[in-house]
Amino acid sequence: MAGYNLEAIEAEPLKDDLDIVIPTIRSLDFLEQWRPFLKHYHLIIVQDGDPSIKIKVPEGYDYELYNRDDINRILGPRANCISYKDGGCRCFGFMVSKKKYIYTIDDDCFVAKDPSGKAINVIAQHIRNLETPSTPHYFNTLYDPFRDGTDFVRGYPFSLREGVQTAISHGLWLNIPDYDAPTQLVKPRERNVRYVDAVMTIPKGVLYPMCGMNLAFNRELIGPAMYFGIMGEGQPISRYDDMWAGWAAKVVCDHLGFGVKTGLPYLWHSKASNPFVNLKKEDKGLHWQEDMVPFFQTLRLSKESDTAAKCYMELSKMTKEKLTKVDPYFEKLGDAMAAWLEAWEELNPPAVDVKDVKTK
Amino acid sequence: MAGYNLEAIEAEPLKDDLDIVIPTIRSLDFLEQWRPFLKHYHLIIVQDGDPSIKIKVPEGYDYELYNRDDINRILGPRANCISYKDGGCRCFGFMVSKKKYIYTIDDDCFVAKDPSGKAINVIAQHIRNLETPSTPHYFNTLYDPFRDGTDFVRGYPFSLREGVQTAISHGLWLNIPDYDAPTQLVKPRERNVRYVDAVMTIPKGVLYPMCGMNLAFNRELIGPAMYFGIMGEGQPISRYDDMWAGWAAKVVCDHLGFGVKTGLPYLWHSKASNPFVNLKKEDKGLHWQEDMVPFFQTLRLSKESDTAAKCYMELSKMTKEKLTKVDPYFEKLGDAMAAWLEAWEELNPPAVDVKDVKTK
Repeated sequence: MAGYNLEAIEAEPLKDDLDIVIPTIRSLDFLEQWRPFLKHYHLIIVQDGDPSIKIKVPEGYDYELYNRDDINRILGPRANCISYKDGGCRCFGFMVSKKKYIYTIDDDCFVAKDPSGKAINVIAQHIRNLETPSTPHYFNTLYDPFRDGTDFVRGYPFSLREGVQTAISHGLWLNIPDYDAPTQLVKPRERNVRYVDAVMTIPKGVLYPMCGMNLAFNRELIGPAMYFGIMGEGQPISRYDDMWAGWAAKVVCDHLGFGVKTGLPYLWHSKASNPFVNLKKEDKGLHWQEDMVPFFQTLRLSKESDTAAKCYMELSKMTKEKLTKVDPYFEKLGDAMAAWLEAWEELNPPAVDVKDVKTK
Repeated sequence: MAGYNLEAIEAEPLKDDLDIVIPTIRSLDFLEQWRPFLKHYHLIIVQDGDPSIKIKVPEGYDYELYNRDDINRILGPRANCISYKDGGCRCFGFMVSKKKYIYTIDDDCFVAKDPSGKAINVIAQHIRNLETPSTPHYFNTLYDPFRDGTDFVRGYPFSLREGVQTAISHGLWLNIPDYDAPTQLVKPRERNVRYVDAVMTIPKGVLYPMCGMNLAFNRELIGPAMYFGIMGEGQPISRYDDMWAGWAAKVVCDHLGFGVKTGLPYLWHSKASNPFVNLKKEDKGLHWQEDMVPFFQTLRLSKESDTAAKCYMELSKMTKEKLTKVDPYFEKLGDAMAAWLEAWEELNPPAVDVKDVKTK
C-alpha cells in the first residue's frame, strides 16, 4: 500500500460527500437489510413508471424522491432525455445531487458476505477505490498497488507510481451474474460463487461493460459523461443504458487522464430478470453493440475538450455523425445527449464545474 | 465457461508437449516437493556459473542438463547471446526444447496451497490458461470467461467471444512478492498473503512486468520473442532479463493477435534475495525502464512481420536505433537479439517454424 491512509478512509464514511441514487418501481424494503451501511447517507430515489404509485421507503432514511411528474417539472422541455420505464432513469438523480460522489444500486441487490463470513460494506470499499489513485498506463500483476499488503512489483516504472485520480469504481455481484438474454437462456442455473479478492484499474484505451447495479463515481470529475441514454418505453432499445454510460465515461476518463477501477466490492444480486423479456429488450442492442463498441474504441476527442462536459458535447456530435448510419435512433440519442448536458449545466452552474471538472 | 472441455485438459497433462526449464546454480532439492506435479515432464536444466560444479538432480526425474561449456559448444560464436551469472540464461533451454509448451520455474519456489488447503497443480492451471482462448480486445468484468462457472457478461460483443489463441500464461507468487530493491528495502516484512482467484487477459496495447519465476508459454507461437537478453556478468544490468522478454513478447503477441494471461496459478516463493545486492544489480534498470517501457509502448511493427521471428528481427533493429541514445549497451543488446534469433532458427529449422509460427 503505497502511502495512503486507508484506516482514515474506513473511519470516515464521507457521509456529507456521497449520495445514494436508487431507481425503482416498487417498495424499497431491500433498504432494511442495508441499514448498517447506508443509513448515514442521503438517498435520491428516482421513481420509474406510473407517478401515482406510492413508493414505500423504510423509516429512518433521509431521502428525496422524484417521480416522472417531478422530472417533467424540473427539466421542462428537456425531460425526454431521461428514460421512462428503464433503469436508465437513475441518471436524473446524478444530475440533481450536489455531492462529490454518487453510489447507485439496484433494488434487487442485497448485502453479500466475504469468504470469512463478514458482511461487505460496499460504500467503504467504493470510497477506498475512489479515494486512492488508479494506474491506467501499465498493468500491475499484484492488482491494486494502493491496497494494504501489496505494492507495485519489480519492473513497474517509478514515474507511473503516482497514478491518476480515480473517477469510477465498478463493483461486482455474487449469485446472479449480469448476463445478457442469450447467455441467461443457455445457462439458466449459472450462479457467480467466486469471490475474487481484487480491485484493478482498467487500462487506458480498454473498454469494459459497465453495469449500473453496484456503481460509484466522482460526479465532479465525470458526472456530465455519466448519462444513461434514452431507452425503455418509446425507444427501440433497453438494457443498454449502463453500457452506453460506461463506454462514454471510459473514453472521457481516458481522454482526461482519470482512472476506472473494477472488482470489489461485491453485493448479492437476488434475482435474474426474465430472459425472454430481456431478449426482446436487448434485441437491437445485441446487434448495435457490434458497432457501438468499435465507435468508442476508435474515436478521438480533441485537445480542446478538457472537461467532462466538453468531451460529452463532442461525443454527442460524433454519435450523430458516425452511428446514425447504423440506425436513425442514434440521431435522437445524440440530441438527447446534448439535452442532458444542457440540463446538467443548468442544474450544476459552471462556476462549480470550471473549478472541479478541469483536468489537473 | 464458453464451450471448452476443461475436464479433458485436467486429465491429460500433455506430458509429451511440455518441457520444464530450470536455471540453477545449486542443487535441485526443491524438485522433491514438486514430484507429484512435475514428475511426468522432461526437465531442461540450465546450469549457470561455474561449469565444474556438479548439480544434483533428485532421482527419478527425466532431464537434460546444459552448463556453460555446453552452451559455448552448441552455439559457438553466438554463445554470448546467453547471459552468464543471471537467471536469464534460462532462455537457452527454450531454444533447445522441441516441445510446444515451456514451463519455467525458479529453484527457490515451492508448491503453494489454495484457500481450501489443496496443493496447487501449477502445470494443470498453466495448461488450462494456454489451451483456452484469451480476450485481449475488450475487458470481461467477471475475468476469464473460459473458466467453469463464468462467462462473458452483458455488453460483451458477440463477435469478440471466440477470443484469440493464448501464447503466454504468467503465474503469481504467494509469500515473497516480486518487488524491486527499493520496495524490498522500504517494506522488508511485506508478504503476499492474498490469493486472488482469477485469471485474466492483459488487454491488447497494455504492457505488464513479466516475472520469469512461474511462467508458461507456447514456444511455437512466441518462442523466438521469448529472449531474456544479455544481463549479469560482463553487462551493466541484471534482474531485467524477464522484464525485457515480457515487454518484447507482449508487443509481438499484440501484433500477431495472440493473447497473454496473468493470475493463477500461484506458487510459494520462499526467500527474498538480498535487497542491497539487488539494488546494485538493478541500478541501471531502474533508470532505463523509464525509457524501455515507452519504447515498447509506442513502437509499431510492420505488416510484413507476420511471425514471431520476423517481429523479433524488427525489434532488434529498433532497439539499436531507438535505445542506443539511452546507453551504448542497447547496441550490444540489439546485436545479441539478432544472434539469439539466428541461433533459434538454426536449432529450430524453418520448415517447422513456417507452419507453426504463422498467424492464423
